[in-house]
Amino acid sequence: LNAAIKSGKVRAPTHIVSTICDDRGEEPTYAGVPMSTIIEKDYGVGDVISLLWFKRSLPRYCTKFIEMCILLCADHGPAVSGAHNSIVTARAGKDLVSCLVSGLLTIGPRFGGAIDDAARYFKDAHDKKLSPYEFVESMKKKGIRVPGIGHRIKSRDNRDKRVELLQKYARTHFPNVKYMEYAVTVETYTLTKANNLVLNVDGCIGSLFLDLLSSCQMFTAQEITEIIEIGYLNGLFVLARSIGLIGHTFDQKRLKQPLYRHPWEDVLYTKYT
Amino acid sequence: LNAAIKSGKVRAPTHIVSTICDDRGEEPTYAGVPMSTIIEKDYGVGDVISLLWFKRSLPRYCTKFIEMCILLCADHGPAVSGAHNSIVTARAGKDLVSCLVSGLLTIGPRFGGAIDDAARYFKDAHDKKLSPYEFVESMKKKGIRVPGIGHRIKSRDNRDKRVELLQKYARTHFPNVKYMEYAVTVETYTLTKANNLVLNVDGCIGSLFLDLLSSCQMFTAQEITEIIEIGYLNGLFVLARSIGLIGHTFDQKRLKQPLYRHPWEDVLYTKYT
Amino acid sequence: LNAAIKSGKVRAPTHIVSTICDDRGEEPTYAGVPMSTIIEKDYGVGDVISLLWFKRSLPRYCTKFIEMCILLCADHGPAVSGAHNSIVTARAGKDLVSCLVSGLLTIGPRFGGAIDDAARYFKDAHDKKLSPYEFVESMKKKGIRVPGIGHRIKSRDNRDKRVELLQKYARTHFPNVKYMEYAVTVETYTLTKANNLVLNVDGCIGSLFLDLLSSCQMFTAQEITEIIEIGYLNGLFVLARSIGLIGHTFDQKRLKQPLYRHPWEDVLYTKYT
Amino acid sequence: LNAAIKSGKVRAPTHIVSTICDDRGEEPTYAGVPMSTIIEKDYGVGDVISLLWFKRSLPRYCTKFIEMCILLCADHGPAVSGAHNSIVTARAGKDLVSCLVSGLLTIGPRFGGAIDDAARYFKDAHDKKLSPYEFVESMKKKGIRVPGIGHRIKSRDNRDKRVELLQKYARTHFPNVKYMEYAVTVETYTLTKANNLVLNVDGCIGSLFLDLLSSCQMFTAQEITEIIEIGYLNGLFVLARSIGLIGHTFDQKRLKQPLYRHPWEDVLYTKYT
Ligand SMILES: CC(C)(COP(=O)(O)OP(=O)(O)OC[C@H]1O[C@@H](n2cnc3c(N)ncnc32)[C@H](O)[C@@H]1OP(=O)(O)O)[C@@H](O)C(=O)NCCC(=O)NCCS
Ligand SMILES: CC(C)(COP(=O)(O)OP(=O)(O)OC[C@H]1O[C@@H](n2cnc3c(N)ncnc32)[C@H](O)[C@@H]1OP(=O)(O)O)[C@@H](O)C(=O)NCCC(=O)NCCS
Ligand SMILES: CC(C)(COP(=O)(O)OP(=O)(O)OC[C@H]1O[C@@H](n2cnc3c(N)ncnc32)[C@H](O)[C@@H]1OP(=O)(O)O)[C@@H](O)C(=O)NCCC(=O)NCCS
Ligand SMILES: CC(C)(COP(=O)(O)OP(=O)(O)OC[C@H]1O[C@@H](n2cnc3c(N)ncnc32)[C@H](O)[C@@H]1OP(=O)(O)O)[C@@H](O)C(=O)NCCC(=O)NCCS
Repeated sequence: LNAAIKSGKVRAPTHIVSTICDDRGEEPTYAGVPMSTIIEKDYGVGDVISLLWFKRSLPRYCTKFIEMCILLCADHGPAVSGAHNSIVTARAGKDLVSCLVSGLLTIGPRFGGAIDDAARYFKDAHDKKLSPYEFVESMKKKGIRVPGIGHRIKSRDNRDKRVELLQKYARTHFPNVKYMEYAVTVETYTLTKANNLVLNVDGCIGSLFLDLLSSCQMFTAQEITEIIEIGYLNGLFVLARSIGLIGHTFDQKRLKQPLYRHPWEDVLYTKYT
Repeated sequence: LNAAIKSGKVRAPTHIVSTICDDRGEEPTYAGVPMSTIIEKDYGVGDVISLLWFKRSLPRYCTKFIEMCILLCADHGPAVSGAHNSIVTARAGKDLVSCLVSGLLTIGPRFGGAIDDAARYFKDAHDKKLSPYEFVESMKKKGIRVPGIGHRIKSRDNRDKRVELLQKYARTHFPNVKYMEYAVTVETYTLTKANNLVLNVDGCIGSLFLDLLSSCQMFTAQEITEIIEIGYLNGLFVLARSIGLIGHTFDQKRLKQPLYRHPWEDVLYTKYT
Repeated sequence: LNAAIKSGKVRAPTHIVSTICDDRGEEPTYAGVPMSTIIEKDYGVGDVISLLWFKRSLPRYCTKFIEMCILLCADHGPAVSGAHNSIVTARAGKDLVSCLVSGLLTIGPRFGGAIDDAARYFKDAHDKKLSPYEFVESMKKKGIRVPGIGHRIKSRDNRDKRVELLQKYARTHFPNVKYMEYAVTVETYTLTKANNLVLNVDGCIGSLFLDLLSSCQMFTAQEITEIIEIGYLNGLFVLARSIGLIGHTFDQKRLKQPLYRHPWEDVLYTKYT
Repeated sequence: LNAAIKSGKVRAPTHIVSTICDDRGEEPTYAGVPMSTIIEKDYGVGDVISLLWFKRSLPRYCTKFIEMCILLCADHGPAVSGAHNSIVTARAGKDLVSCLVSGLLTIGPRFGGAIDDAARYFKDAHDKKLSPYEFVESMKKKGIRVPGIGHRIKSRDNRDKRVELLQKYARTHFPNVKYMEYAVTVETYTLTKANNLVLNVDGCIGSLFLDLLSSCQMFTAQEITEIIEIGYLNGLFVLARSIGLIGHTFDQKRLKQPLYRHPWEDVLYTKYT
């Protein structure tokens, strides 16, 4: 068949198209870069993500930032939806993949989804040149909380250290941080409304990722729009949190925890909806 | 290509083999039976399971028994692992499939797995003609609890009504209930050890399924062994409980429940393993 | 703690609310009906779905219709997305739940999602008293194909037998089939545009489910809206197709199929997006 | 309730135990290390994995090796089971998490599972001081292929560059590579049987991970056994490959690929099992 296809006698259109990794040679290539080059050239996890997701070799300041985001989102304790479901599944004696997956499936609009939304709204508002006032008030009219703004504990006088560190890193290494600066002006405005309406980690990552994409000069405007629409930043959160979910699974298995059953007295059984 | 294959000039071995359902004609057939026949002949859910899982049309007393098993396993409240994970995922705002799946992934050795194990052990013990004493004591030596035996609340003098109803149904409609009778002799023996070591619903379904397979005369001995090894009864539990998990998902969505976070005070944060 | 809560000394609001199944007594109840009643009264799968999803006992003509929908959607061959992924996972040697779940996750807007959408659009158009002309043309303007209309093979002169059987059943047993009649007038109009724009199975099920909900007099208008919005019919498809996905998994395991690898020559490796 | 618990009047034992991450303070800590320290001290992904999975700060040569494993396992093209299922799900229009998860569920005994098995068997054989001859021949008797040995293309005279690079890295940076040396003596023996029975990447990673655990002096013998039994290396593969699966999902979405349907002519529909 192969010979027939090659000789052009039989036309067999392929059913799958793929562009990120070629495994047909002696060693796979990631966006054209052979695996052994990746080892020899001392690439990091951020570089491989850059190759497999963005199909290009981003500068080191970008891939380092991607790694920082992974570190910050890797875990947030056993009580959040994702970790909780992984823990329950681990305690039911299931294999690692099932545990991880049961937790991952909780990631979405209410858990983990704020980074992408922050990027979407900040990009839109910035590019339309809305003033912070116009942006925040128009969101209020639509009844949507500004994603990336607000924190339960942190406030104007008790800043989130992680946000400060990310901002410092970006100010030092990024050619340009216009989206982050825009987010800061939004924060300045929301802080006049309430003391805890600070730029939070999600908003900081979301706006800085916009700066990464636009400042490195390696993406067309259309490509950036596509990346934000498809939701690459959600991928970053999903990958990062997988580290934590796998960690919680190992933890429960090591602790030999028994089957979890939610306590009866914590459930309200009712007929009334 | 198709023409070339048909004309025999190019040999293209298929990569997939499948035997249960043919969708190439005007309407799909299940094990050879066209869908419209299924509607016209008033088939039930048990009949379709019979066609798609066992590839034959089992007698009505069998498919009715399959349906009874589905009814009994459809749900067991919101506190068990599966329902709990579905509820948590629903409250994270995820779509129906994600919620269902997050719950299904907890089904396994500790949650829902007793039916298949009961069938495996009862079959083995019965076919080897072990006396109840030999069987139970050999299990004890291996440190394995007899699956299908034991109940937290029910006891000799307070029987489980569902078990009674299933037994009554089978005694009336099955040509032969030798495996169930064997399970009852095991129960008689374990009841001499403790009052609550009754034959439970899982053990009852597991042993009666063996009777179904062997008494209907439509399976070879090898086919029965294969069915028990592959774990078809687990499939029955998984399918049945899907009804409940979907129900819990709809329930939470209708109740508009917010993101679940496990209460901090119910978690022991520790460093010591 | 329970005693303390009951005596009113300690306030412990529950973290989970649930309404469909109570497992605290000797046997679980489904929407208040004890499991043994379900067996004694000869309930079917449709009745249990009625209790666990709709929290009420629907008349037999309704639960029978639910069962017919399950039969029709149970499988559609090995080549569709869901079955294919279950087959690939089974051939990777994974457990039943992983195989089922890997297939279920493909169900969504493009695979299996037409029933709910058909119900949504037909309900909206019918309730707004749009003429078939107004409805179809307004959809065309929005660039949306009318869900539930159109078939690759069937046409005006070669009707789908399943649609005919469902229609006949409903005309005989439902008190009222106004939504289905509306769908038929839409079909009459679309058939003037092209010969194959018939009412398909999805459209038939979607519209008849609207008739079921409105004609049985057991739901308020608001409840019906909620059911259609939440997407209960998708649940019906998901449950039904689980039968097929489990069947395909058993099939591959029985056939002892090896690890699947998609053929290289069917993949176009490219750099150009 | 909290006050009552603290005052000791009400005893509320916790239902969850967790040891890897504490989120109760102002910023989460990973195994006791605050997140801001992780950023300030320039930790990498390997360091965070070290904290969340192994609950200790491993030396840099270890965490760097962990990162190298992630790079090497991140992807292996679109044709393998995992990538294929993610691609099919992406083409069904599903969200990122569903696509990733559908692919992850194929990871197991036949796809991705060789690293853990290689570690298990090499550890056992080495610790029992089996000669390569005894080890390989005893495996043959059991009918098990030595995991970590063998390659379709590579051979004695055409070594896998990645294996060479990993070996070189470990020989330079690890205090001790006794397990890897053992694997090499096994390879020397199997090469006398066939030219392609080389130590492959999986076997190289598996044996070197044993060296990592034993040479860094930070784990007790029992802890190492536990890590190998629980299957931490599978976690490494799962995490690594998530990068690829997410990449394939983005790729298909960017390419706007339509619903996948496996070609009919590639399926053998049959009744014979
Ligand atoms: C993070 C968050 C949940 C903290 O909320 P909180 O401190 O509990 O805030 P409350 O719900 O008590 O709201 C207090 C007031 O601030 C307002 N507010 C809170 N977050 C707001 C936001 N992001 N944008 C605009 N207004 C906001 C509320 O509307 C409320 O105003 P009101 O009293 O006039 O109705 C909240 O700010 C939020 O939802 N932010 C957006 C999502 C996000 O970024 N999440 C990631 C967090 S890391
Ligand atoms: C159902 C079950 C969990 C109830 O357990 P329980 O009433 O809490 O029983 P306990 O754990 O207190 O055990 C009491 C004694 O009975 C014994 N026992 C309990 N179940 C047993 C069984 N299935 N076979 C043999 N001995 C059993 C225990 O070993 C224990 O003996 P010991 O005191 O000498 O050690 C238990 O019987 C069991 O695990 N059964 C097997 C699994 C099964 O069928 N599950 C489905 C239930 S619907
Ligand atoms: C079922 C379906 C895929 C069959 O499509 P098909 O026969 O391949 O139709 P084509 O894509 O060749 O379209 C032929 C023409 O009919 C039109 N058409 C097809 N389905 C239509 C619909 N549901 N509503 C309105 N117009 C439709 C197309 O727009 C096209 O018109 P054009 O040539 O002027 O552009 C298609 O009818 C459809 O998408 N239906 C809606 C979804 C649905 O109900 N799916 C469940 C099927 S069981
Ligand atoms: C990698 C692998 C699939 C390559 O297989 P292959 O080149 O197609 O080998 P074949 O199946 O043609 O086997 C050729 C001979 O080598 C033997 N052989 C292959 N791999 C072997 C191994 N790992 N241990 C011992 N013998 C092996 C076979 O038994 C066969 O011997 P026979 O002809 O006497 O029966 C195979 O070596 C293997 O399964 N290895 C173990 C699993 C593993 O490490 N996988 C990860 C690969 S990166």
